[in-house]
Amino acid sequence: MERITLLKDKFEQTRKRSEAICAPLEIEDYVPQPIIDVSPPKWHLGHTTWFFEAFVLQPHARDYQVYDEDFAFLFNSYYNNAGERVLRPNRGLMSRPPVRDVISYREYVTEKCLEFLETELSKEVLDVLEIGINHEQQHQELLVYDIKYILGNQPTFPVYGPEFLVREEKSTGFSSIKGGIFEIGADGKSFCYDNELNRHQVYLQDFEISENLVTNGEYLEFMEDGGYTDFNLWLSEGWDFVQKEQLNAPLYWYEKNGEWYNYSLKGFEKVDMSLPVQHVSFYEAYAYAEWKGMRLPTEFEWEVASDTFKWGQLWEWTYSAYLPYPGFQKAPGALGEYNGKFMSNQNVLRGASVASPKGHSRKTYRNFFHASSRWLFSGIRLAK
Amino acid sequence: MERITLLKDKFEQTRKRSEAICAPLEIEDYVPQPIIDVSPPKWHLGHTTWFFEAFVLQPHARDYQVYDEDFAFLFNSYYNNAGERVLRPNRGLMSRPPVRDVISYREYVTEKCLEFLETELSKEVLDVLEIGINHEQQHQELLVYDIKYILGNQPTFPVYGPEFLVREEKSTGFSSIKGGIFEIGADGKSFCYDNELNRHQVYLQDFEISENLVTNGEYLEFMEDGGYTDFNLWLSEGWDFVQKEQLNAPLYWYEKNGEWYNYSLKGFEKVDMSLPVQHVSFYEAYAYAEWKGMRLPTEFEWEVASDTFKWGQLWEWTYSAYLPYPGFQKAPGALGEYNGKFMSNQNVLRGASVASPKGHSRKTYRNFFHASSRWLFSGIRLAK
Amino acid sequence: MERITLLKDKFEQTRKRSEAICAPLEIEDYVPQPIIDVSPPKWHLGHTTWFFEAFVLQPHARDYQVYDEDFAFLFNSYYNNAGERVLRPNRGLMSRPPVRDVISYREYVTEKCLEFLETELSKEVLDVLEIGINHEQQHQELLVYDIKYILGNQPTFPVYGPEFLVREEKSTGFSSIKGGIFEIGADGKSFCYDNELNRHQVYLQDFEISENLVTNGEYLEFMEDGGYTDFNLWLSEGWDFVQKEQLNAPLYWYEKNGEWYNYSLKGFEKVDMSLPVQHVSFYEAYAYAEWKGMRLPTEFEWEVASDTFKWGQLWEWTYSAYLPYPGFQKAPGALGEYNGKFMSNQNVLRGASVASPKGHSRKTYRNFFHASSRWLFSGIRLAK
Amino acid sequence: MERITLLKDKFEQTRKRSEAICAPLEIEDYVPQPIIDVSPPKWHLGHTTWFFEAFVLQPHARDYQVYDEDFAFLFNSYYNNAGERVLRPNRGLMSRPPVRDVISYREYVTEKCLEFLETELSKEVLDVLEIGINHEQQHQELLVYDIKYILGNQPTFPVYGPEFLVREEKSTGFSSIKGGIFEIGADGKSFCYDNELNRHQVYLQDFEISENLVTNGEYLEFMEDGGYTDFNLWLSEGWDFVQKEQLNAPLYWYEKNGEWYNYSLKGFEKVDMSLPVQHVSFYEAYAYAEWKGMRLPTEFEWEVASDTFKWGQLWEWTYSAYLPYPGFQKAPGALGEYNGKFMSNQNVLRGASVASPKGHSRKTYRNFFHASSRWLFSGIRLAK
Repeated sequence: MERITLLKDKFEQTRKRSEAICAPLEIEDYVPQPIIDVSPPKWHLGHTTWFFEAFVLQPHARDYQVYDEDFAFLFNSYYNNAGERVLRPNRGLMSRPPVRDVISYREYVTEKCLEFLETELSKEVLDVLEIGINHEQQHQELLVYDIKYILGNQPTFPVYGPEFLVREEKSTGFSSIKGGIFEIGADGKSFCYDNELNRHQVYLQDFEISENLVTNGEYLEFMEDGGYTDFNLWLSEGWDFVQKEQLNAPLYWYEKNGEWYNYSLKGFEKVDMSLPVQHVSFYEAYAYAEWKGMRLPTEFEWEVASDTFKWGQLWEWTYSAYLPYPGFQKAPGALGEYNGKFMSNQNVLRGASVASPKGHSRKTYRNFFHASSRWLFSGIRLAK
Repeated sequence: MERITLLKDKFEQTRKRSEAICAPLEIEDYVPQPIIDVSPPKWHLGHTTWFFEAFVLQPHARDYQVYDEDFAFLFNSYYNNAGERVLRPNRGLMSRPPVRDVISYREYVTEKCLEFLETELSKEVLDVLEIGINHEQQHQELLVYDIKYILGNQPTFPVYGPEFLVREEKSTGFSSIKGGIFEIGADGKSFCYDNELNRHQVYLQDFEISENLVTNGEYLEFMEDGGYTDFNLWLSEGWDFVQKEQLNAPLYWYEKNGEWYNYSLKGFEKVDMSLPVQHVSFYEAYAYAEWKGMRLPTEFEWEVASDTFKWGQLWEWTYSAYLPYPGFQKAPGALGEYNGKFMSNQNVLRGASVASPKGHSRKTYRNFFHASSRWLFSGIRLAK
Repeated sequence: MERITLLKDKFEQTRKRSEAICAPLEIEDYVPQPIIDVSPPKWHLGHTTWFFEAFVLQPHARDYQVYDEDFAFLFNSYYNNAGERVLRPNRGLMSRPPVRDVISYREYVTEKCLEFLETELSKEVLDVLEIGINHEQQHQELLVYDIKYILGNQPTFPVYGPEFLVREEKSTGFSSIKGGIFEIGADGKSFCYDNELNRHQVYLQDFEISENLVTNGEYLEFMEDGGYTDFNLWLSEGWDFVQKEQLNAPLYWYEKNGEWYNYSLKGFEKVDMSLPVQHVSFYEAYAYAEWKGMRLPTEFEWEVASDTFKWGQLWEWTYSAYLPYPGFQKAPGALGEYNGKFMSNQNVLRGASVASPKGHSRKTYRNFFHASSRWLFSGIRLAK
Repeated sequence: MERITLLKDKFEQTRKRSEAICAPLEIEDYVPQPIIDVSPPKWHLGHTTWFFEAFVLQPHARDYQVYDEDFAFLFNSYYNNAGERVLRPNRGLMSRPPVRDVISYREYVTEKCLEFLETELSKEVLDVLEIGINHEQQHQELLVYDIKYILGNQPTFPVYGPEFLVREEKSTGFSSIKGGIFEIGADGKSFCYDNELNRHQVYLQDFEISENLVTNGEYLEFMEDGGYTDFNLWLSEGWDFVQKEQLNAPLYWYEKNGEWYNYSLKGFEKVDMSLPVQHVSFYEAYAYAEWKGMRLPTEFEWEVASDTFKWGQLWEWTYSAYLPYPGFQKAPGALGEYNGKFMSNQNVLRGASVASPKGHSRKTYRNFFHASSRWLFSGIRLAK
């Protein structure tokens, strides 16, 4: 099939899926921003739409009429390259426009894009459109994290539904990889982000890597062995974090009458010990590995070994900082702000999660979060 | 008419009025808490209802079935005397229960109260009911402030409607009051709060007090004369406040192309110089008075002189700290937390505002806010 | 004796006494500013000297040569009326000038003042000189508080010496005062601050006031009865303060093996139960009074009743806000910043303390601190 | 010469040098901690001494009498592995013990160590002693940074002396390095830290690296071209940092009458454009490189190319995160806290500075600081 037909299909599916993810919500759930990392669902719906308007339609579609000038201000997450914007901590204050206007905005832009896709389009425009689709897919994953955080912080723990749940993780041992020179990164033949380029050689030592994720049951052993109170297991900043936040378990875990419960999208329930442990920070993943006498893999080890194990339930913390590959070039203009400017003080996660859209995962994909983040769908794979 | 009939009428009107105030809102507007002082409208609707449930129905109405156990937790603003509660800064995170459930809660409690009012009730119960009505009226006024703050912080400045607007203020001079002993405070024959008791004597010196509020036009002269940049005019903490917040005008004022605009509930418009200046902190009121070579009245002067001037457009900052009257007794139990515990570091405002419910103002009424508060409907009256 | 001779004597004694207070210190003790309220002793020595230089010598003494231009910047605590200044939180960073240079500065200015006092001086100049002496006396008292705080926060609790210690407080009952009109404030015939003027009439109700301060033993009963954990006893902001700071005893108290110790200027020792309780905030004084079923006196009650009891061991918290007396006029120029600009969110204390310089106390004296301050020499007298 | 003789010499020289660095200080300069990163010189002198006491003498020297039990508490920077400690932000509050007691402590421990070195010592003990010497050398470098910060923040900019000044940096072009496999890290034959081990292979692409550091003159061009105001040049967190701190030049630079001055240890003087630019954060180094269309080298590139250029004036920011080498093992016990626990959110600097002690530099040395640090002696080398 032609590229344009494929993109059109993917565009339509992606646009529909964002709304489907929000379908179980009350109107009120679209509004709050409980912590700075968590954006209101309404904002995600608007922002992903604004991206198509600002980078596809406005610069390229003849006679395009902007839906509403104010929306660029409200839904821009970028720097001044794309104009003024609402400061991130204030997203939860924006009760207006109401959700129904954001939906109208979505419909308008979707329709205009589909009309535009009927015209003759340059490769450059199709490239931007493809980025827009991938951008919306990324936000779909964040949308799931954010919805879980908003609902999971209601004292009534409302149920979302049966989607985006992890499954049992079976222990099957370690794969051994022989050291040497390996090729790392994307070859650029199919869609990838700028941060996956360029494909280049790295030298790795011999290593072993677990074929499965750490389970809740295994993690509970660490907790019961005093893992959260022995500073020897922690990075210095990790220990400060644990002390300041008074952590003693993964996010969404609650002790009640001597038993552990957690909030999942199905509601408040006993922790299932056979599931992979979820919602741990890098600091906790590191401390767990220390306690086990092992370590976390680097992102290069992960990529090289990924075919020897199953992945895709949870994003996996690596002990690699998010840094540019040799020869990294950021895109020109506002799209250049997409990835490169975040390459400081963040950790790479590899893999994918149950919240990742279909077709939006590949073994060269480099996800990245701060070491203290816990609201993402993160897990632990050990190496040695 | 009998007390119970009067109370029943007042109860029904008060319950309806809270909902009427919210009628122009979008569902989304009920949710945010943009600053800690501003509670979500949904919270006000729930909290005023919980008050009747917790203090009237639960302790006094036979066989009363609580609407929902969780609501006590969600809508309690009090200390442990009335159980656990959501911490104040987190009110804006509570997307659940949705507005429609809060409305159902209101209907249920209103109906149960009306049924309960058909039974034979002790004076004590009627007293608590009357407090509940007055409590809801107080929250109605806060609701107006909070709605204005929520809408006024939308980049799109949405219109609320033609209610709660101040009118022109005409200058008519100063009243002279001869010093001596005066009676201050409520006599307790009709409804009043504990903080208005006991009626007692104070000695005042001769003073003069303006018969009208300071207007926007007069305040602009202060601004244009460098009022916000001359520290000699300010209290020390006021100057720190102005520096830290980088203030140069009342709340909701914006300079655009050399002209002053402000947000009123009618929307974004040019400042009308004939209206009384509104949304100033005590610090600004003090600095303005200094600049004029005058001062703010004390709350006692205000009460004594109140019959010589018109009042009721805006709450008027006095240079009196909020302190107990001689012989002040706080009520027993949770209602004792109503007023007395706030008697520290707050300033008294006297009068009433266009947002005050009918029948909820009297010259002995003692309103109180922190000196830096600006989102209330406050104004300036001079004395000398 | 002539006024000028008296002032000269007082000036010389005052200058010497500041240095005597610092005599037991190590050079290192002159430097730190452990909390923003506590200034380095070196700063007090410089600042009180700068006051004479800036307000007496520079404007009035012919041909006066400024000791060092930088010192005005370093030791000015005032606003721009007296030029630029080091921001208050940075006083503890100023290791330079070294202490010996500050002492030289003191000697130079003292000598120049004494020379200047040999010339013919106007009443205006003598008035400023008298304010300078009183200003230095005020700082002498702060110097004692600050030295105690600096030493009391060394893990080694060094001994200062036998000065400034409270003595036993004996319980003798309550004085009853009949209500009526009373004269309050200073008559201006001898030295007083602007905040003590004007003498004016107030009307008081009947009241009773304790003839002695609350002792450590009595306060311990409050502690042991759960005083610090019962929110019903506290003002709302007091309760927040106690929670945030996790307080369970007065400042400088430490529990060790089930017994209470405290740091006094004699070192670390068991709490002496017969001494008046010291280093409590207004919030604690209020809560203690609530627990006793009594209250704190107002500053007017205190002044009226002061002849019926002994005072002078500790400053006594009143339940009066620090506000201007009727007809209050602040002095012109920089000296106008002395008192008036602090009249917001502070509480009045009356009396004097063992750290107050001789001749620097009178029953009309209005001391003032924030309700949360604990490092001053404060105590509790009850009223009812 | 025998190892023990060499160590003894090095020990004696190192101990003397710490005191020599402090010789130009006033007693008062030993006390302040102006920012959390900057420790009081007194603390460095005590802490380096405590290290020998706690890790050499106490565990190994028969009958060793601790100098003062309190000093372990005061001068421990480590976690509970070595007992309780003063929290880092409070170091500047410790006026006691006075400097002369710290000097006595130094003399006592130095003497005891020298006596101990006369006895027969195991390799393990000599290893710890060698770490202690290197530890003190590291603190000597920090001592220089901290002294400069303390003096450089006095409004009077006092002169320290002619030591530790950078020299002219001449531009000579770029070295080209051909890619391939390289050996990285220390071989462990002479002293190194655990973080330099193990020596291992890495694969590098072709690269070019400058033979000299960026000069003040070159950096000024970046400033004058709007470098500090163009967010496109900055990492996202770097831009936030620059905005929040309102930076527009390196640390210690001041604009006066249109010319740039800076504070060096010689005092306040015009910026010398031929010197290497100093006191820039990683963020500024990154932005400068972006502006030049180049990049910073990785730590591996630096190590591989280091023989092709001169280094040692300033620590050089690399674009490498501080992470463990393959097979990294931390030492057991408290010494294990030395390096490994800091391997998160820090950037590697390579080289050495004019403040580095002789014999304390090697091309495998990995220094590390947070990306926002500016008080260290840091500079910029470009790569492409």
